[in-house]
Amino acid sequence: MAVAAALESKEKPSLEPLARLVGEDLVRVNHHIVANMQSPVALIPQLAGHIVAAGGKRLRPMLTLAAAQLCGYRGERHVALAAAVEFIHTATLLHDDVVDESDLRRGIKTANALWGNKASVLVGDFLFSRAFQLMVADGSLEVLRILSHASAVIAEGEVLQLVTSNDISTTEEAYLAVIRAKTAQLFAAACRIGPVVAGRPAAEADAMEAYGLNLGIAFQLVDDMLDYSARQAELGKTVGDDFRDGKITLPIVLAIRQGDDEERAFWRRTLEEQEQTQADLARAQSLLRRHGALEATMERARTYGAEARRALSGFPPGPVREALDMVVAFCVERGF
Amino acid sequence: MAVAAALESKEKPSLEPLARLVGEDLVRVNHHIVANMQSPVALIPQLAGHIVAAGGKRLRPMLTLAAAQLCGYRGERHVALAAAVEFIHTATLLHDDVVDESDLRRGIKTANALWGNKASVLVGDFLFSRAFQLMVADGSLEVLRILSHASAVIAEGEVLQLVTSNDISTTEEAYLAVIRAKTAQLFAAACRIGPVVAGRPAAEADAMEAYGLNLGIAFQLVDDMLDYSARQAELGKTVGDDFRDGKITLPIVLAIRQGDDEERAFWRRTLEEQEQTQADLARAQSLLRRHGALEATMERARTYGAEARRALSGFPPGPVREALDMVVAFCVERGF
Repeated sequence: MAVAAALESKEKPSLEPLARLVGEDLVRVNHHIVANMQSPVALIPQLAGHIVAAGGKRLRPMLTLAAAQLCGYRGERHVALAAAVEFIHTATLLHDDVVDESDLRRGIKTANALWGNKASVLVGDFLFSRAFQLMVADGSLEVLRILSHASAVIAEGEVLQLVTSNDISTTEEAYLAVIRAKTAQLFAAACRIGPVVAGRPAAEADAMEAYGLNLGIAFQLVDDMLDYSARQAELGKTVGDDFRDGKITLPIVLAIRQGDDEERAFWRRTLEEQEQTQADLARAQSLLRRHGALEATMERARTYGAEARRALSGFPPGPVREALDMVVAFCVERGF
Repeated sequence: MAVAAALESKEKPSLEPLARLVGEDLVRVNHHIVANMQSPVALIPQLAGHIVAAGGKRLRPMLTLAAAQLCGYRGERHVALAAAVEFIHTATLLHDDVVDESDLRRGIKTANALWGNKASVLVGDFLFSRAFQLMVADGSLEVLRILSHASAVIAEGEVLQLVTSNDISTTEEAYLAVIRAKTAQLFAAACRIGPVVAGRPAAEADAMEAYGLNLGIAFQLVDDMLDYSARQAELGKTVGDDFRDGKITLPIVLAIRQGDDEERAFWRRTLEEQEQTQADLARAQSLLRRHGALEATMERARTYGAEARRALSGFPPGPVREALDMVVAFCVERGF
């Protein structure tokens, strides 16, 4: 079996096994996505197409598809709902780009940089509404409950991140609360929809949700680590975006905790007061190295990854479970 | 009867009769609003409270309450759904403020000016999600369908407005398409919810929706007229916001249509190229006067107002229908 062979041969973990298993469904998800971002207002499919069609791993919709498969679902509902999940993700990306003034996402120009804040906010609103229209067409109040709740929590997490930005007294707990809400909640919801459409008992839905939640936390931890890592440049992304924004991510929290007064003064100047010189990013990276902050962040990512894998243990073994296992390995190991 | 007396005595039309009739329900709507904008993230109730609690006529939720009353509804569902309608309205205001860089709304500082774009976008997202959570708790897929559709159309209208901004070749039809979508759609949805929760036949729901749609168009026409009118200053709002933003509203469309080459050059410079001097607003107002553009805009508002009133004709006469009649008069006549 391809998946088992890949695991045994210690090949580099990838999303390939997952992509193969859900491939046919994913083609239909993409059709749903393209069909539902149409509008007589041409700028909408144009801008949405830029961010929706141009790329992304489609990780979240693939999780919905795989979770449904793992639970033995044989119908068609998971396809439109996976598209709804991707629309919610895309809407949050568009709104996040507006606010963070980030210039690169997935190595291409952000919609915001190309079309302006205004269009990004409004097209995000359009996709968000479309996501709910897809759910209404599906007709499950339970799914609507899951994703409307997730959306509210995501927005709360984004606001919490905004509030803790530039505040070097942010604790590890506050940081975890942010990433649990802004990132992990949608992973969790995407996974829960699988057992729900399959009509499985609550315990199974809870287990799939726990898998998604822990995977999402691990995913974001690695993302935040990568922002200070040379690996990031190899992946075609800029290094130090979070630093320039004054975001207090876990590597920073850990380094500040161990730093002396002089280091605190450095973090206060660069992150709180946002007074940065050309050389400051390199200094920040050297402080993170000195305190082993990137390794410690990866260590926590591995712990959450292990928790995610454990949540799968009650599901039937086989290629789908193996592929979901490998998603965890992929999300964690891309940090190296 | 107070309402009839007011109408007969040709008193200045007001929202008072409506506010009196739905007053008790509206108190409960306000409780729902305050309870549902709470969050452990303090900035959310703070910012939402600024825009939600600080003011507004609560016109849209009042329409939901009155429409339910007019249809003989005796339950409690309309209260939470009216709160959902107000949350959607508030979210669009927050997102509209972000993009328009307008400095005044209802005469007070916009949330955007006080807290920044970032917070306004995200708190808008939170309120939008909460609106859907309220609908899910209500449990009607029909209501979810109405408001998710309305939200998508509103976003489309806002994008269309963005595309037509600064384009002096915008037609009256394009302008009407914008206000029908961005403003009238939510009025229509707010009204339709009344007969829907009351379990009334589709024809009644259609009639209430037609009332809301035409009222909303009239409302926005008057708003756009007022932006160039001295009345606006008396209402405590700045005059000329749309002009400075380069928005192509109906008064402008009508004046351009009748203007000569020299006038077209003026509109091109001020609205398309956005090169404005201190004296340009007064020049614009004088051109609008010369071509009777404000009166012509009011004339159309009256036509849509009459259409709104006609849509009520099938409903039982009485204080609720009279109050809804007077809402039309109020929305149109505040233009004088």
